[in-house]
Amino acid sequence: MSELRKDIISGHWVILASERGKRPDDFRPAGPEKKEEVPPFCPFCEGNESKTPPEVASLRKRGSRPDQPGWWVRTVPNKFPALNRGLPPERHDEGIFQWMDGVGVHEVIIETPAHLQELPDLPVLHLQDVLATYQERVKSIEEEYQYKYVHVFKNKGREAGASLSHPHSQIVATPIIPKQVNEELYSCERLHRQFGECIFCRTIREETQIGQRLVLRNDHFCVATPFAPRFPFELRIYPLRHSPWFSRLTKTELRSLAQTIKAVLGKLRNILADPPYNFYIHQAPNPNLPHEAWINLRKSYHWHMEIIPVLTRVAGFEWGTGFYINPVPPETAAGFLTG
Amino acid sequence: MSELRKDIISGHWVILASERGKRPDDFRPAGPEKKEEVPPFCPFCEGNESKTPPEVASLRKRGSRPDQPGWWVRTVPNKFPALNRGLPPERHDEGIFQWMDGVGVHEVIIETPAHLQELPDLPVLHLQDVLATYQERVKSIEEEYQYKYVHVFKNKGREAGASLSHPHSQIVATPIIPKQVNEELYSCERLHRQFGECIFCRTIREETQIGQRLVLRNDHFCVATPFAPRFPFELRIYPLRHSPWFSRLTKTELRSLAQTIKAVLGKLRNILADPPYNFYIHQAPNPNLPHEAWINLRKSYHWHMEIIPVLTRVAGFEWGTGFYINPVPPETAAGFLTG
Repeated sequence: MSELRKDIISGHWVILASERGKRPDDFRPAGPEKKEEVPPFCPFCEGNESKTPPEVASLRKRGSRPDQPGWWVRTVPNKFPALNRGLPPERHDEGIFQWMDGVGVHEVIIETPAHLQELPDLPVLHLQDVLATYQERVKSIEEEYQYKYVHVFKNKGREAGASLSHPHSQIVATPIIPKQVNEELYSCERLHRQFGECIFCRTIREETQIGQRLVLRNDHFCVATPFAPRFPFELRIYPLRHSPWFSRLTKTELRSLAQTIKAVLGKLRNILADPPYNFYIHQAPNPNLPHEAWINLRKSYHWHMEIIPVLTRVAGFEWGTGFYINPVPPETAAGFLTG
Repeated sequence: MSELRKDIISGHWVILASERGKRPDDFRPAGPEKKEEVPPFCPFCEGNESKTPPEVASLRKRGSRPDQPGWWVRTVPNKFPALNRGLPPERHDEGIFQWMDGVGVHEVIIETPAHLQELPDLPVLHLQDVLATYQERVKSIEEEYQYKYVHVFKNKGREAGASLSHPHSQIVATPIIPKQVNEELYSCERLHRQFGECIFCRTIREETQIGQRLVLRNDHFCVATPFAPRFPFELRIYPLRHSPWFSRLTKTELRSLAQTIKAVLGKLRNILADPPYNFYIHQAPNPNLPHEAWINLRKSYHWHMEIIPVLTRVAGFEWGTGFYINPVPPETAAGFLTG
């Protein structure tokens, strides 16, 4: 069982994932990231279903059986989970130390049976099925109240933290609302009072008018580089319809999001030579929880996606101050992505 | 001139360093980090003084002249500065957008004329001179009131963000107190009220008693792994004497800090095969500024150093939530470092 611990000064929680236990030798410098080759063995490839924990969901051909070939999107528990399912954990508090059991969910969504087929290579309908799987898993996990926040994310490339190269996304559900998510919720609530409207709705309107940071806009989504991006070519995908929850997207919107993601990841791949990247969804916490009444989430929070290509290193200045140095202005990045 | 911009939701500031301007091609994947070799040309090596901007300080043999050989610690302005010296910048505020000119200081402290001599290889007296240089530069920069916070840090190894392998540290002074530093100050003030003592003094006492996370302790310093570390083998160096400012260390303390750093970096190098790392100093803001009276900094804040070996990747989970997954419990790390 892993453990959650809180840093009393910064207020951040960390997951000490002892089941991923490592010794100093495990950190010897590794070789360079090679251009993707099919590795000798991949547990996520079709035919190797027995090498993962039993699947919790899949989209598969009629008549095919769980944990057998025939699927095109497959969800399995992480074999080395950061958190494990369990009862709501008790919070321990002893003077300056606070901790709780590492209760949570950690799943892997295998996006395709084909090892070399990246997200922008997938047909739109297939990518829509990946997104629908995100939705279904989020909703299913949120039925258990101890999982207060469900985080959907993707690490692509070793530099972006992926340990396996086969295309996959991940879901981690935590028994507390992460500090950064909480701060965003509080901040959006405050900004809603200040501006009399959702800060994301306002951002979408202004970015569309200004145009300089706009990467694309269609019937349901808008993609822009942020005004103050931490990283070069950082991107945000905003839904035009205000909603706090990704899990409430309609099928039409899911289709449009698939088209949008395919277009944007394709652009990044072309302009930046197939960069490693992270993306994640920011949405409101588990809607089945009674949320504090003063946070008028429905009006003030607006779910969205953030995409971070991994092009620069975070270093001592950033770690120590929270300030980021970005050598590419977002207007320049948007120019390259639309040029 | 670079620009500082604020993200209205997170409250973080970023530096858009256009003088470091990069095109997409600059981000093509690079090769692996090679074992250090002397590169064909290094502007920080002795004899190449003319290849850096003119020095702002140096410790050098009597009779030798500025920007000539004969130095053992040399400080120069960064050739590609993230911020440039200037008058106090005006803060612009237009609806949801906030920015100011990128006014600040960015200097490089070349720690030794010898390309392959790393910090733990330096004699204690030489390392003390590096630390004394940090002190002198901090004090000198703080004489100008527009520099509200002076951040001293080191990136060692390309994976840790170093662009040159010659041993060096950096100083960046910013015209605002960074959000993360401010949060730490406020939090320490609150914790001082809660516990009736400085949270760092209390931590030092408890970590010494418990012993499980203690790496070393001498007459003036204590080194421990934090209770909730974000990264494997993360370390903190705490001065035993309470003081908000590193720049107020006595000579005796500086000597002891040099011994402490030499010991700790030597341990990390032995146990972890010469890992890339970042370290930085956290101290109170510019003491020449009138600070807000309610923050009783002198009592509640305690300067310290943080060391982060770069062993794992920060990925989509961490970027999206601020939660960190750490596969090495701090007690295990301390065990390896003291075993």
